[in-house]
Amino acid sequence: MRRSEVDLTDEIMESPKQMILRVSQELSCRPTSRRLAEHLDRLDPLRHLRHEFLMPRTSDLPNADLSLVDSSEDCVYFAGNSLGLQPKNTKKYIDEELEKWAKIGVHGHTQGSRPWAWAEDTLEGSMAKIVGAKPEEVALMNGLTVNLHLLMLSFYKPTPKRHKILLEDKAFPSDHYAIESQIQLRGMNVADSMLIIKPRQGEDTIRTEDIVSLIESEGESIALVMLSGVQYYTGQLFQIETITSAGHAQGCLVGFDCAHAVGNVELRLHDWNVDFACWCSYKYVNSGAGGLAGAFIHEKHAHSVRPTLTGWWGHDLKTRFLMNNEMELQPGVNGFRLSNQPMLLVCPLQASLEIFNKTTMKDLRSKSVLLTGYLEFLITHYYTRDQSDPDDIMTTSDPGEPCVDIITPSDPEQRGCQLSLSFSRPIRAVYEELEKRGVACDMREPNVLRVAPVPLYNSFTDVHRFISVLGSALRSSRE
Amino acid sequence: MRRSEVDLTDEIMESPKQMILRVSQELSCRPTSRRLAEHLDRLDPLRHLRHEFLMPRTSDLPNADLSLVDSSEDCVYFAGNSLGLQPKNTKKYIDEELEKWAKIGVHGHTQGSRPWAWAEDTLEGSMAKIVGAKPEEVALMNGLTVNLHLLMLSFYKPTPKRHKILLEDKAFPSDHYAIESQIQLRGMNVADSMLIIKPRQGEDTIRTEDIVSLIESEGESIALVMLSGVQYYTGQLFQIETITSAGHAQGCLVGFDCAHAVGNVELRLHDWNVDFACWCSYKYVNSGAGGLAGAFIHEKHAHSVRPTLTGWWGHDLKTRFLMNNEMELQPGVNGFRLSNQPMLLVCPLQASLEIFNKTTMKDLRSKSVLLTGYLEFLITHYYTRDQSDPDDIMTTSDPGEPCVDIITPSDPEQRGCQLSLSFSRPIRAVYEELEKRGVACDMREPNVLRVAPVPLYNSFTDVHRFISVLGSALRSSRE
Ligand SMILES: Cc1ncc(COP(=O)(O)O)c(C=O)c1O
Ligand SMILES: Cc1ncc(COP(=O)(O)O)c(C=O)c1O
Repeated sequence: MRRSEVDLTDEIMESPKQMILRVSQELSCRPTSRRLAEHLDRLDPLRHLRHEFLMPRTSDLPNADLSLVDSSEDCVYFAGNSLGLQPKNTKKYIDEELEKWAKIGVHGHTQGSRPWAWAEDTLEGSMAKIVGAKPEEVALMNGLTVNLHLLMLSFYKPTPKRHKILLEDKAFPSDHYAIESQIQLRGMNVADSMLIIKPRQGEDTIRTEDIVSLIESEGESIALVMLSGVQYYTGQLFQIETITSAGHAQGCLVGFDCAHAVGNVELRLHDWNVDFACWCSYKYVNSGAGGLAGAFIHEKHAHSVRPTLTGWWGHDLKTRFLMNNEMELQPGVNGFRLSNQPMLLVCPLQASLEIFNKTTMKDLRSKSVLLTGYLEFLITHYYTRDQSDPDDIMTTSDPGEPCVDIITPSDPEQRGCQLSLSFSRPIRAVYEELEKRGVACDMREPNVLRVAPVPLYNSFTDVHRFISVLGSALRSSRE
Repeated sequence: MRRSEVDLTDEIMESPKQMILRVSQELSCRPTSRRLAEHLDRLDPLRHLRHEFLMPRTSDLPNADLSLVDSSEDCVYFAGNSLGLQPKNTKKYIDEELEKWAKIGVHGHTQGSRPWAWAEDTLEGSMAKIVGAKPEEVALMNGLTVNLHLLMLSFYKPTPKRHKILLEDKAFPSDHYAIESQIQLRGMNVADSMLIIKPRQGEDTIRTEDIVSLIESEGESIALVMLSGVQYYTGQLFQIETITSAGHAQGCLVGFDCAHAVGNVELRLHDWNVDFACWCSYKYVNSGAGGLAGAFIHEKHAHSVRPTLTGWWGHDLKTRFLMNNEMELQPGVNGFRLSNQPMLLVCPLQASLEIFNKTTMKDLRSKSVLLTGYLEFLITHYYTRDQSDPDDIMTTSDPGEPCVDIITPSDPEQRGCQLSLSFSRPIRAVYEELEKRGVACDMREPNVLRVAPVPLYNSFTDVHRFISVLGSALRSSRE
């Protein structure tokens, strides 16, 4: 490791803001200068990973205005919270499997480097590292909502006394519906059994202390605590360890939907004693739309929690193809498999996991804290009214200037890479201007923009470009 | 249509055997002559469809013995009952979607000819034609066993009086386990509620009359009749319409696992009043290992049968992405969707369904009856002891000669393209010799070979080659 890289690692012991101010002083430039972003990119020990991905160009984006963008330039891709970019080896691996299918047909099930009949098994070790699990605690299968259901079928077994599922307000719709239907399946009443925790009046995110105290007060009636790891809308990272032990103290089972957490923040599902978890792989894990989803069951349940629904893929591989209809169930999450897995979905996931294997979640997270901290710094600098600061551009300028609230917690420990920005103006027009200028991110009407600088492939310069494009988008959207 | 093609269509009004004998007389050749096979290929109006697929070559098969095969030759691919061949457009369509992902990232959800967020919807019309359903009765999603479970969760609601599921003996393992676990989920006893119908003593397949009379005698206790369309092991085509009405007469619901029936035989799920069905697409529908599976719910249930488990993909597309957590459930099978579908699985399925759209199941079936009839004729000719025929080669020759029983019903109405052959010798050695000679088919120890001449891509010459290779395989395996 070169000296500059060591420096960066040391530097993040400061807060991101302190670090930004210090480095800008060292460079004798303003903290808002593009020179700072370029300098941070040079120091970034993970910057080479961007080249492992196919980054869209501004001019290829469907709504780009070619008079406003430099068409040779990469777009500002801040939509990894929705769909990750394509790992460059994806096509190569898919082509290999298509060629295998073409050449040997059915024999592909057992031949080649990815025998289709167990191809996903070779990826579970890499996936397990990302979520902080043992390989045998992880299965790659199905879609996320399917897995959520399969897991809840075994982990939600309400009794008249203990029947509630605790979930967050405005949970992702699929999770909300899944929980609702599991309650109905078990003959319980949704109004009584769906325990929804909301932020306090006037707040956007939920305080950990409020979650813990709700678990403490209602714990005896809670069968299952079922939250997201990172909340899709607010970007809040729930305190998984704290919540899990609060739940366990009350005798509840605790599961997490890690769709927005996996590949984004460091997870230690095993050490934190989480009972079960599930996630998709098309966001920060970059496996493409509808990619193979994941499921985790803690090893402590390997021999006690059985799948409610079974299929031949849950049968021990050694004897599966004897097909004698006598189930030899695999222990743990592997027993939850139902169908054979699609080889075409294994390929992109392999390509992506190989990139994760070139770094660690720890290093990705270090970069991420700084990258998102830098974005927060610039947003706050330009768009937050700070009455105490007489130089603040928002205070001194036209009161009609837009301002931006950051919904996502400012504590890096309570968020991943995504910031959810709430604008003082309707967002659609701003979003359209951003699109014209080659930014890919996510809008939620009436006024929220979600932006995710992803440490695997985004740069400090991307963040700087986003801020400068946002300025011009805001000006144009006003006209 | 040319005259010769019209002829062929007329000719199949005869039995396959009559037709073979007549044509061989017209050609002045023996019915076992290769000339006959070549002639039938020339008459085959569907012969061009073979060129829509990538047919493996003998020399590419993993266990081919290069001293025994002509390496430039196509293999004899009779394994379509396990994994169909790759449609040539598969790679093109996948490349298009990979390019879209590379170029526009998340925007691919709504852009291009296959917007990922609803790409599978464009295929349901084609799939519906293949299974004889209305487009809105069909959903493409998940794997087969997953769909089987999702459907049974709504269609199997046992009561103390009506709690049994009728299934066939030696059902496909995944179906067996799925049924077993559904019974357990509902708190019923497997021994009491799993009603298994077997062939009569000394018979290999199950008589329709026996199924019907079991339904009649046990009907009041049967909640669900759940059979396969075509039995994977014996190749028997169950009489779906007869069984469905027998079930309905007793107040049972009736579902079919059409894994081995779809794309193989003509289905009229709607007209036959089948309550629900599911299938995979990687066998006769050629979508590649683990391809997108299908589900059917009859429209009569569209507003009365609700999914037991729900997810965001079951929400009406028009309002799905408002994400307000108020479910607007799509009617019928579309409400059973849980997860977004993988775009990479839509591509091969599209490529395959486009080939089906170049013909009809009726025409495929006409060819299939003849093709499998020809195979049966040759197997019977060479390997069945017919004591009444003094010229029979089996009778006249060495009594140590192998003989072959055809397990699959001889009535074309009761089978699809597959024949299951039971050998008077252990099959492994024979199978290995077949593999050396470039045949791909399926072995089940101790003594069964399953061979499926698929009308989409197999020819009469393939059948003839198989028979001649089988002769030499049997000779070699004996040495
Ligand atoms: C009749 C039948 N049912 C179920 C299955 C299992 O399919 P999957 O692994 O796609 O769930 C198969 C696969 O061959 C099958 O033939
Ligand atoms: C938190 C969460 N849960 C569930 C889903 C639904 O995923 P799928 O369609 O893969 O089941 C998503 C998708 O974005 C999600 O973010």
